Amino acid sequence: MTEVKLHGVLLSPYVYRVIWALKLKGVPYEFVAEDLSNKSDLLLKYNPVYKKIPVLVHGEKPVSESMVILEYIEEMWPQNPSLMPNDPYDRALARFWIKFIEDKIVAILGLFRSITGQELENATKELLEILQTLEEHGLGEKFFFNGDNIGLVDIAFGSMLFSMQVIGDVVGVKPFESHKFPSLHAWFENFKQIPVIEENFPNRDEYFVYIKRRREELLASA
Amino acid sequence: MTEVKLHGVLLSPYVYRVIWALKLKGVPYEFVAEDLSNKSDLLLKYNPVYKKIPVLVHGEKPVSESMVILEYIEEMWPQNPSLMPNDPYDRALARFWIKFIEDKIVAILGLFRSITGQELENATKELLEILQTLEEHGLGEKFFFNGDNIGLVDIAFGSMLFSMQVIGDVVGVKPFESHKFPSLHAWFENFKQIPVIEENFPNRDEYFVYIKRRREELLASA
Repeated sequence: MTEVKLHGVLLSPYVYRVIWALKLKGVPYEFVAEDLSNKSDLLLKYNPVYKKIPVLVHGEKPVSESMVILEYIEEMWPQNPSLMPNDPYDRALARFWIKFIEDKIVAILGLFRSITGQELENATKELLEILQTLEEHGLGEKFFFNGDNIGLVDIAFGSMLFSMQVIGDVVGVKPFESHKFPSLHAWFENFKQIPVIEENFPNRDEYFVYIKRRREELLASA
Repeated sequence: MTEVKLHGVLLSPYVYRVIWALKLKGVPYEFVAEDLSNKSDLLLKYNPVYKKIPVLVHGEKPVSESMVILEYIEEMWPQNPSLMPNDPYDRALARFWIKFIEDKIVAILGLFRSITGQELENATKELLEILQTLEEHGLGEKFFFNGDNIGLVDIAFGSMLFSMQVIGDVVGVKPFESHKFPSLHAWFENFKQIPVIEENFPNRDEYFVYIKRRREELLASA
């Protein structure tokens, strides 16, 4: 069997996307912990364009960018469970929402970087609009984004939501209120109860401490 | 046969991506010209999230976002020519470069919006770095991005490069110099000589006039 290695750090929500997909598929892999303050030569070799984690290495062949890695995992190990719909139109809808989530993730960075009250208000408003779009047009009445079973859109959004909640806690806002987004809230509970997700969920407290420290560094330099 | 309609405007480089893919595949379609200053109810219904063109409507089912549309076209009409590699790893590389191009397109907007000399210099520098990455890591020694034949990466980058050149002409910079990017230049010549691309290439002069007018509006309001 060709060896699978995942280069990453366990604080990165992007790395969890890959961990979730590999674990859901039952693909054995070796986790290679990277030090982002002192990137390994191997990481620089594998991802010379971005020099970022996660990188999946499958038999010496590296794949970078979390959602590109996830589509690769889905294509290489299509079996049980399938994480993309079978129908090409439904797959296009899944890719549409993945692109939406990827394009909007920058808004979380906006929240993290907000310094003035006005900046915080603007960033929160933007996140509320994103959540509203996903509530109304993305998830709707469905159990998961693709229908009855977990798929790549759920994985993409689950990691984004985890990150958004912790960063919100650090800066002191709670955009993801249950009365505003009832469908998304029900979805997130279902998502977190899937055994593989529950057993491999990022540690909220460690991520909080990490984000808080980085936020203090940002404020100190502002 | 299920009806295919493409909602768009012929000034949009994103719309040309879809036209090129449909024509390369020989898929017959009806072009529905939209007026972006007065969007049709149909467009708002088909793309409620972004309210943007292009939208491909296949038997009443709408698909939005140009690269999502292109992957849909490839999956619906996989035959002759295939626009994605057969090997899953090569497909992952293609998706990596498509994401790179999509993420970096914002730099062209930066060029368009540059007002001061410093802004223009920064935007040009960023574009040079993007082109250098594509020259060195993306295209390399290959004829097209996927190898010997045109594919989705070529279509994505061809439309970006057309737009970059015209916007560069309007603002007065020429980042895409042949001595700096010999591989990309040879590639662009090969790309434009493919009959379908040549016969359906956007009109440079019309796009120049359009961008020039919008640039003058921007400068007048600055």
